[in-house]
Amino acid sequence: MAEIPIRFGIIGCAEIARKVSRAIQLAPNATVSAVASRSFDKAANFAKANGFRPDTKIYGSYESLLDDPDIDAVYLPLPTSLHLKWAVLTAQKKKHLLTEKPVALSVAEFDQILKACEENGVQIMDGTMWVHNPRTHKMKQFLNDKEQFGQLRTVNSCFTFFADPDFLKNDIRVKPDLDALGALGDAGWYGIRSILWAVDYELPKTVTAFRNPVLNEAGVLLECGASLLWADGKIATFHCSFLSNLTMNLTAIGTLGTLHLTDFIIPYQEHQASYTSSTKPGFNELVTGWVQLPSEHTVTVDLPQEACMVREFASLVANIKKNGAQPDKKWPTISRKTQLVLDAVKASMEKGFQPVEIVG
Amino acid sequence: MAEIPIRFGIIGCAEIARKVSRAIQLAPNATVSAVASRSFDKAANFAKANGFRPDTKIYGSYESLLDDPDIDAVYLPLPTSLHLKWAVLTAQKKKHLLTEKPVALSVAEFDQILKACEENGVQIMDGTMWVHNPRTHKMKQFLNDKEQFGQLRTVNSCFTFFADPDFLKNDIRVKPDLDALGALGDAGWYGIRSILWAVDYELPKTVTAFRNPVLNEAGVLLECGASLLWADGKIATFHCSFLSNLTMNLTAIGTLGTLHLTDFIIPYQEHQASYTSSTKPGFNELVTGWVQLPSEHTVTVDLPQEACMVREFASLVANIKKNGAQPDKKWPTISRKTQLVLDAVKASMEKGFQPVEIVG
Repeated sequence: MAEIPIRFGIIGCAEIARKVSRAIQLAPNATVSAVASRSFDKAANFAKANGFRPDTKIYGSYESLLDDPDIDAVYLPLPTSLHLKWAVLTAQKKKHLLTEKPVALSVAEFDQILKACEENGVQIMDGTMWVHNPRTHKMKQFLNDKEQFGQLRTVNSCFTFFADPDFLKNDIRVKPDLDALGALGDAGWYGIRSILWAVDYELPKTVTAFRNPVLNEAGVLLECGASLLWADGKIATFHCSFLSNLTMNLTAIGTLGTLHLTDFIIPYQEHQASYTSSTKPGFNELVTGWVQLPSEHTVTVDLPQEACMVREFASLVANIKKNGAQPDKKWPTISRKTQLVLDAVKASMEKGFQPVEIVG
Repeated sequence: MAEIPIRFGIIGCAEIARKVSRAIQLAPNATVSAVASRSFDKAANFAKANGFRPDTKIYGSYESLLDDPDIDAVYLPLPTSLHLKWAVLTAQKKKHLLTEKPVALSVAEFDQILKACEENGVQIMDGTMWVHNPRTHKMKQFLNDKEQFGQLRTVNSCFTFFADPDFLKNDIRVKPDLDALGALGDAGWYGIRSILWAVDYELPKTVTAFRNPVLNEAGVLLECGASLLWADGKIATFHCSFLSNLTMNLTAIGTLGTLHLTDFIIPYQEHQASYTSSTKPGFNELVTGWVQLPSEHTVTVDLPQEACMVREFASLVANIKKNGAQPDKKWPTISRKTQLVLDAVKASMEKGFQPVEIVG
C-alpha cells in the first residue's frame, strides 16, 4: 500500500500501548520506530515484551523521542491530564499525533491541542478503534438506507465493566490528577461517540445528565449517564459504569428499521464481527409471534479494527508527507464533538442535572 | 387440573380480545361462557369468528352479561377511560376481573377499582402477558442468583412500534377520551413493568421524564421515556414510542452478570422463547476479543404466555370459589405500582421534567 511506512514513536508504555503497538506492526503502512518511557529500562522491556524489531529505538525520556527526526508520528497513550502538554509538544516538533481518548480534560484544552496541530500542519486523530471496524461501515450503510432504516428516532448506548478493587484503588482512570473524567472519559466516551456516529455527528441541542452519578472519594466519576436531545425530536441515552458487569450494547431505532449489537466497542471475535438489523418486522395475525425476525449479519475483519485505525491515520499522514496535502479535518472534528458532549454532561451535573445547551 | 373450569365473560370485542379469548380456551382451567358487545350482532360475529362453543352466550349489552349468574370472571378489554365504570360494576356484581392494561387512567382511579374488588371479595389481575411466560421465571432465577448476576445496577427497557397513518388517526390509543395515556399507557406500561419486575417491584425513589415527549394534536403521548432512580444508586431508563420501528429490548445489568433479550413482550415464537445471560465475561490478553460470550438460553413454552396468564388468574379465582381463600394481593399490588410509576412520569412532564418522588 504505502511504499515507505509511517514511522511511529510511542510515548508511554501504558497497557493499551501493547494493543496499539501490535496494530502499528500489523498495519501495512506503519511501523514502530521508537518507544519512550520516563525510564529507559521500562521502554526497553516494553519493546522486548511486544516483539518490536531489534532496531527499534529506545528512549528514557519523552523529549528525546520527540527530538528524533526519523519519527513521523507519535502514539500518545498517556493519562488524559498529560495530553495537553505532550500533544502540543508533539505538534510543535512537527510530528503527527494519534492520541488516546478522551482527547483532553475539556474542549478548551483540546482546542489548544488542535491549534498547535493546525499551526504545525500535523494530523491528529483519536484512538477510538471501533469506528474503523469494517462492521461499522456496514452498519452505517444500513442507518443511511432510507428504505430499510428510515429516519433515525432514538439511540441507546451502554458500556459498563466491573472494575476489581485494585482498579478502583489504583487505576489511572480513578485518579483526579491523571484521568479526572473517570468512567465518563473512559467508558462514556464510547457511548457518546456511538450516539454521534449514529446521527452523522450532528450535535444534540441539549444534554441532560442522569441524576445518579456515582463518584469515588476523590470526586472521580465511577458511573453516570445522560440523555441527548435534537431539535427534530431525536433522543439518545447512554449509561457508563465501572461498577457493572461487562456490557456494550448499542441500539439505534429508525422509523422503519432497528440496528442492534452487544459488542460494539470490542467485537466478540477479532476476525469477524456481527450485528442484527430488522426492517418493518411485524406480528402474526393473533400477535402471538413475529412474522419476521431481526437478521444477523457477519462481517469478515481481515485487519483488526485497531490496525484499520492505524492504517487510516498513517494513510492521512502519508498524504501530507508525500503529496503535501492538508491535514484531514474529519477526525479532529469528530474528536472535538465527542469532547463537547462529554463536557456538557459534566456541566449538566454541575448545574444540578439541568439541560445544557450545546454550542458547536 | 381444575375440575370445573372458571367461566369467563368477555366485555367488549376489541382486537386484543381475540388473542385472550383463545388463551381462555387454551387454559386448562378456564372457558369462555359469554361475550358481550354494545351490539348483539357484533358479539355474535365475534363468537363465531373466534370459534367459541355453540352454547356460548351472546349479550347485546355489558350489563346483561354482568347480570348472568353463571359467569365467574370477566375479561375487560375496553378502552382505559371505561375501566373505572365497568371494573367497579364487575366487582359489585361479584365477578372476578381480568382487565387490560393500563389498569386505569390514574392510581386514584385504580384505587377505586381496588376498593370495589376488596369490598366484594373478587380477584383482580391485569393483562400483562409476558410476566407469565416460563421464560420470565427462568430469567428471574438468573437475576436472583447472587453468584451469577450479583447486585442489580441498571435496567434499560425499550418498546417501540411504528404506527401507520390509520392508527395515528383512528386507534383508541391516540384518542384523549379513550386511552388518554397514549404510548405511555400502552407501550410504556411494558417498559415500566419490566423495570419493576427486574427490581423485585421495589418502587423507585424518583422518576424523571425525558424532555422530549411527542404528543399528537389532541395532546396524547405518542413517544416518551423516563429515568427511574432508587436510593441505593440503581438507575433504570425506558423509552416508548408509536413512531419507531418495532423493537422490544430489555437489558438488566448486575455487578456480575447481564441479562438481555430483544423480544421481551411478545416472544419471536409462541412455543419457545430465548434470552442471553453472561456472567463475568472478560477480554483476551490483548483486549482484542472476548474470552466468554453471552450464552443463549431457550425455554420451551408448552402453553402460550397469555394462556399461562389466564391459567394463573383462573387458579386464583378457583381457590376463592372452591376453598374460600382470600383474593391474592400480589397481582393487584404489581398493577398499582406500575400505574404509580406511570402517573409519576406524567407528573414529571407536568412539572417541567423535574424529578417526582414516588410515595408508595
